[in-house]
Amino acid sequence: MKARIEIRLKPGVLDPEAAAIERALRQLGFAGLKGVARAKVIEVELEARGPEEAEAELRAMCERLLANPVIETYAIALLR
Amino acid sequence: MKARIEIRLKPGVLDPEAAAIERALRQLGFAGLKGVARAKVIEVELEARGPEEAEAELRAMCERLLANPVIETYAIALLR
Repeated sequence: MKARIEIRLKPGVLDPEAAAIERALRQLGFAGLKGVARAKVIEVELEARGPEEAEAELRAMCERLLANPVIETYAIALLR
Repeated sequence: MKARIEIRLKPGVLDPEAAAIERALRQLGFAGLKGVARAKVIEVELEARGPEEAEAELRAMCERLLANPVIETYAIALLR
């Protein structure tokens, strides 16, 4: 089973890397730019007996390693 | 206009960070794991006169700063 986990900073958490990208794009002349945000995607392939088991495993992966629940949120999507 | 750019390594390019995540998940006991891949998402808000102009700008941003065309591919999706 394949799944896609998207992890992003909670609203209000400063993202210096996104700010740096925005500044660099402006310096390159992209004047119409209004904002930049980032997220990371982790695609996981795993064996599971069904979608419930897969989602429970993926949630545990997020809580224990992939996301920092203090400052990040995550969304899990099962692909097949 | 909002857009979403997804950047990932070309097939065959080694991703040590994905390999480290996979190893760490296994050490945590996730035995059903079969593979991990990563991608990054950059969300851009920009002013443009239409979708063609927006897409041209976004493509230029990717080529000039956001992606490394030697080892990465990118996909642009206009959201509205």
